[in-house]
Amino acid sequence: MSFRGEQHPGVKTPTADSMGFRLNHTMLRVKDPEKSLAFYTGVFGMRVLRRLDFEELGFSLYFLAKLEEGEPVPEDAQERTVWTFRQTGLLELTHNWGTEAQDEFAYHDGNAEPQGFGHICFSVPDLEAAEAWFDASRVTFVKRSDQGRMKDVVFVKDVDGYWIEVVQADRLGALGS
Amino acid sequence: MSFRGEQHPGVKTPTADSMGFRLNHTMLRVKDPEKSLAFYTGVFGMRVLRRLDFEELGFSLYFLAKLEEGEPVPEDAQERTVWTFRQTGLLELTHNWGTEAQDEFAYHDGNAEPQGFGHICFSVPDLEAAEAWFDASRVTFVKRSDQGRMKDVVFVKDVDGYWIEVVQADRLGALGS
Repeated sequence: MSFRGEQHPGVKTPTADSMGFRLNHTMLRVKDPEKSLAFYTGVFGMRVLRRLDFEELGFSLYFLAKLEEGEPVPEDAQERTVWTFRQTGLLELTHNWGTEAQDEFAYHDGNAEPQGFGHICFSVPDLEAAEAWFDASRVTFVKRSDQGRMKDVVFVKDVDGYWIEVVQADRLGALGS
Repeated sequence: MSFRGEQHPGVKTPTADSMGFRLNHTMLRVKDPEKSLAFYTGVFGMRVLRRLDFEELGFSLYFLAKLEEGEPVPEDAQERTVWTFRQTGLLELTHNWGTEAQDEFAYHDGNAEPQGFGHICFSVPDLEAAEAWFDASRVTFVKRSDQGRMKDVVFVKDVDGYWIEVVQADRLGALGS
């Protein structure tokens, strides 16, 4: 590894203590898993690696990945759970049972006050093709690529209102300073 | 690809429209990047791939990755920006300039009300070693592996109070039902 990271105030050199750590997933609570699964599989092409149910605690977890062609995912469920927790870049959706039946129930997107979490981001090969696909899929836009001050950056909303940034990597080389 | 995803209500078969989509990053706003960078590089072993500054808008973005040994990261900054947006499993930290100087300023963790985003999760090779390392690093625990109803699952807080789940994959095969 020749590139060892940019140096900025605060940055430390990793030690052996964090060797093998991997950023496995990001967890978002969802109101209605049927709608969320339709969205993340149908529109963004993710697959459900594992659903884990916790009967006594009244919730289910769904682990989703954007699988590459030919990835050797174990067929056995327990082996696949272990495999799932070894990956990087997964999405975990948490469903607290019953929220889907409550008309007024809604989760907080983190961009309205109080702010915190901002968004997840997908990188796509062709931004205009993705925008056309989102339109065909009736996805709600926060901002199209030709709107606002950050050109070439798209924001859409998932079915709970969480923001999803969508970018095309090779158009962002000159981003920022 | 033999495994094509678990089937649950709502799940759809991905089409060619989402081919090449990758889950690139999760964005969290941070109050003081110097403290956040010390935490994510020093404790979790991440590297800063790119800082992007937006002078007119008054914010900076930091893209962090847990690099594997030997990953061919471009040295050239613009090439590295493009490379960054092609990866999966990154963390983006957003710093709105000036928040670090405001005593009372704090971001919302998503677990207190109003709920939404829950946590990010790192997978580690040895959970007890990781807990000892967090203690040595004076990291705040939400829950240790021997506490609560979900054994073998650790939660700590980052410097803004965002929750980080920490798990050891091969101890979770029997998780859920």
